[in-house]
Amino acid sequence: MNSPLPDPDSHEIRIRVRYSESDPMGLLHHSRYLSYFEMGRMELFRAQGGDYREMESRGLFVVVLKLQCEFKRPAKFDDLLTLTTRIANVTPAKLEHDYELRRGDELLARARVVLACVDRTGAVQQLTRDVLFGAPGS
Amino acid sequence: MNSPLPDPDSHEIRIRVRYSESDPMGLLHHSRYLSYFEMGRMELFRAQGGDYREMESRGLFVVVLKLQCEFKRPAKFDDLLTLTTRIANVTPAKLEHDYELRRGDELLARARVVLACVDRTGAVQQLTRDVLFGAPGS
Amino acid sequence: MNSPLPDPDSHEIRIRVRYSESDPMGLLHHSRYLSYFEMGRMELFRAQGGDYREMESRGLFVVVLKLQCEFKRPAKFDDLLTLTTRIANVTPAKLEHDYELRRGDELLARARVVLACVDRTGAVQQLTRDVLFGAPGS
Amino acid sequence: MNSPLPDPDSHEIRIRVRYSESDPMGLLHHSRYLSYFEMGRMELFRAQGGDYREMESRGLFVVVLKLQCEFKRPAKFDDLLTLTTRIANVTPAKLEHDYELRRGDELLARARVVLACVDRTGAVQQLTRDVLFGAPGS
Repeated sequence: MNSPLPDPDSHEIRIRVRYSESDPMGLLHHSRYLSYFEMGRMELFRAQGGDYREMESRGLFVVVLKLQCEFKRPAKFDDLLTLTTRIANVTPAKLEHDYELRRGDELLARARVVLACVDRTGAVQQLTRDVLFGAPGS
Repeated sequence: MNSPLPDPDSHEIRIRVRYSESDPMGLLHHSRYLSYFEMGRMELFRAQGGDYREMESRGLFVVVLKLQCEFKRPAKFDDLLTLTTRIANVTPAKLEHDYELRRGDELLARARVVLACVDRTGAVQQLTRDVLFGAPGS
Repeated sequence: MNSPLPDPDSHEIRIRVRYSESDPMGLLHHSRYLSYFEMGRMELFRAQGGDYREMESRGLFVVVLKLQCEFKRPAKFDDLLTLTTRIANVTPAKLEHDYELRRGDELLARARVVLACVDRTGAVQQLTRDVLFGAPGS
Repeated sequence: MNSPLPDPDSHEIRIRVRYSESDPMGLLHHSRYLSYFEMGRMELFRAQGGDYREMESRGLFVVVLKLQCEFKRPAKFDDLLTLTTRIANVTPAKLEHDYELRRGDELLARARVVLACVDRTGAVQQLTRDVLFGAPGS
């Protein structure tokens, strides 16, 4: 695959479930998983040499087009979790990641999120190295 | 359909996008849509005569099994949105809703969320009228 | 007081406590009160003829300098609350509001938040009518 | 001071500002500082041998009575911050912590939060070692 994204193509982070993210059941609220996935792909991008804050300062933004998530077992307040983020597909227009959230060996959730890159006007940008990492010497 | 859920089977709410829900692009963060959908199904349940807080006080909890969402156009800070929640499918084990989020006539997002009902131990409960609304006279 | 802010100087809004805002105790998480107060002052500003989104589009931003809050009784998931926002003090550099959050007659929390207005560079702006509401004819 | 809390009496954690915590100014939303402070005191408690999740499973809960916070400079999306949490005062009824949030040497915010411990009925509990850490052998 002639991907604009250099290796690695997967990355792991550790996340402690915060009290403020936990709901009246004592469980990580399902909406919070999406913020975890976002952290996962940003850290993968950092591991590839990218800098998402810098990318936004160049007027380029990543937006979510589509997502699906399966919740298999609940994550609880204070759990220490491992999130694996893996590039599933890259086309000139879209970037897809797969996510697996685990507590030890137990798989808690699995998701796919489809992203696109847009400029300030919302116009879709091709996913090239220059768009993602900045033009060399710029 | 011999559903345990009485009419209505769809409901509309209005939501103003909060500043604290908006991200550095000035857009409603994608994770927040899930909280809106949760509000939508709770208000539909209220319109059906249900009371989710009371249901939890009986030791019964609704958990999310699966979700999928398509984001078609971004919602912006301070937008006044309309969310339509509709029951898509009810089985003894699962309850599925469809959601459509609009700004005026514009469709911004469309989603499906699959729920189950569990007790304090996490054991799945059949979706009966007594489980959802409490036993008569109790 | 020669305030740049026209009447009214106080405003009430109703807020339903969301499930996603409630913590493992079943209570509104204390951090969420600050988002409620922000909603309160934005709706007061709207009632005065202001439009905070439009103000940001002119490159002017409101930042929090200081806050204090007393929590007297907890707000619970699904409570329907009333928030009163009142202007406490206006100087050329600072704008202070008082907040009272109630469930029926019961006072749940009381707060004061001190704001300033800055431009894109973070430089403090004088709180004039033109800064807050835009120059006439602009 | 005959505190029920053993050493250490202060603790430092590192926090990366998440995208989902950042507002349309690109800054950490002011309400999110309170969640950071909560993480700080929970990690301090863990460093003292405590386990807040276990404490809640014994029916004991920490609630916020009062807080004040001064915001000196904004924290930005993707900043790597250091939070220092320090015990300021312990009485049989109240526990106060001071917080300082820094980016490198720069002080961004300073806060004090006053806590109490309650049981399931909301009745205030004395802050003893048994309440905080569980009775020995229990």
